Amino acid sequence: MNIRERRTIRKYTQQPISDELLNRLLEEAARTQTMGNLQLYSVVVTRSDEMKRKLAPAHFNQPMVTTAPVVLTVCADFRRTTDWCECRNADPGYDNLLSFMNAATDALLYTQTFCNLAEEEGLGICFLGTTVYMPQQIIGVLELPELVFPVATLTVGWPAEDPALSDRLPLRSFVHAETYQPYTEQTIDDFYASKEALEENRHFVEINRKETLAQVFTDIRYTRKDNEMMSEGLLEALRRQGFIKPDCNNS
Amino acid sequence: MNIRERRTIRKYTQQPISDELLNRLLEEAARTQTMGNLQLYSVVVTRSDEMKRKLAPAHFNQPMVTTAPVVLTVCADFRRTTDWCECRNADPGYDNLLSFMNAATDALLYTQTFCNLAEEEGLGICFLGTTVYMPQQIIGVLELPELVFPVATLTVGWPAEDPALSDRLPLRSFVHAETYQPYTEQTIDDFYASKEALEENRHFVEINRKETLAQVFTDIRYTRKDNEMMSEGLLEALRRQGFIKPDCNNS
Repeated sequence: MNIRERRTIRKYTQQPISDELLNRLLEEAARTQTMGNLQLYSVVVTRSDEMKRKLAPAHFNQPMVTTAPVVLTVCADFRRTTDWCECRNADPGYDNLLSFMNAATDALLYTQTFCNLAEEEGLGICFLGTTVYMPQQIIGVLELPELVFPVATLTVGWPAEDPALSDRLPLRSFVHAETYQPYTEQTIDDFYASKEALEENRHFVEINRKETLAQVFTDIRYTRKDNEMMSEGLLEALRRQGFIKPDCNNS
Repeated sequence: MNIRERRTIRKYTQQPISDELLNRLLEEAARTQTMGNLQLYSVVVTRSDEMKRKLAPAHFNQPMVTTAPVVLTVCADFRRTTDWCECRNADPGYDNLLSFMNAATDALLYTQTFCNLAEEEGLGICFLGTTVYMPQQIIGVLELPELVFPVATLTVGWPAEDPALSDRLPLRSFVHAETYQPYTEQTIDDFYASKEALEENRHFVEINRKETLAQVFTDIRYTRKDNEMMSEGLLEALRRQGFIKPDCNNS
């Protein structure tokens, strides 16, 4: 694994990804640990142009969705396990928040092993965080039944770009020994200094006419208003997919 | 990556894991994609026997917690980002469910790259799904502040066992082309036949005096009663950590 050189890839060549390669990677990724060996995930593979066009709006029409040869939507899935139980005279009790977390965990761990394997193979990937922004649209397009919930989308293809490595915070900023060490003004200054000094980030602040890089995040990229609105949509979708009871009045 | 040979390892030799190796792996794993490059996670490293003993009950006293040289608790973390915003005259709005999902996603993807890297290095890992069963206990022991939530625990050490590979469902059971294909009695029989026929699973059914393997899951391992009780604890912990508003009456 050449993780040190990993980049997100958003531009892909016209070269297709064979079913053979894709299936091998999807199968190998399933060696990832999973709760009770239940494999609480499923993957919807989008290859058709028509389905890519239908998925695109749920991802704010980011061009990767229609230009990548393959789009994968990885779902937390207690449907298959529940169907199995119902076929076997067993009473499944997986229509609750804990079960959603368990299945989302399985799905995300599976997703990341797939990413690591695919990148090792030379493929380029973009992880679309938009999946949980408007889940109801994706649920509709992919016809996801109750107890299935999309948690990750990957656009996958052969790289047609070679972007610069992005920066990361220093290790000491996110690793804590024995107990969580609260941050102070001083440690925050220390940990974020390099990021704030980067030319590209200074440029970001300038073109957005903000005072600080943090304001670009809070006022433009991830605002309270958007987060609160999308939290409601997320809750509503979790209810409709059967993972939260409708008596929760947080709406 | 030798993913085809991956096993969960629960028994470890006395050989320690050096800080140098552990830190290198923790740092390399941070190359994983992350939302807006915010790295919405933190890792609490437990090496002291005293802290392992304190963590153990939250994990049903599974012996790996006290016998592994290192225990890692990976947390969804919007605390550091929020502190950064507050130090930079920016108004953070990350005390909501969407932000929890975003941070949990970042944390779980990071966790799995760490697992892939550590296993490539020859280390053995056990992923403890118990982390979200009694999160409040872990939050207390590790002194996690608001907007920090444990989502994964790994026990890590040099393998002192070589268990058999566990089975997996066939690829066709969890991969769907274009849209989700509903399961039928026939496909369920097909997909679960091998698993149900395994000697170890037949033994499980027998010693638990059940009719079917599925009943071992629904009646003993992951029961509705436990799931519903722990869902309440999870919701309550999400409220206390500030990710859900207290006006949600689902209690």
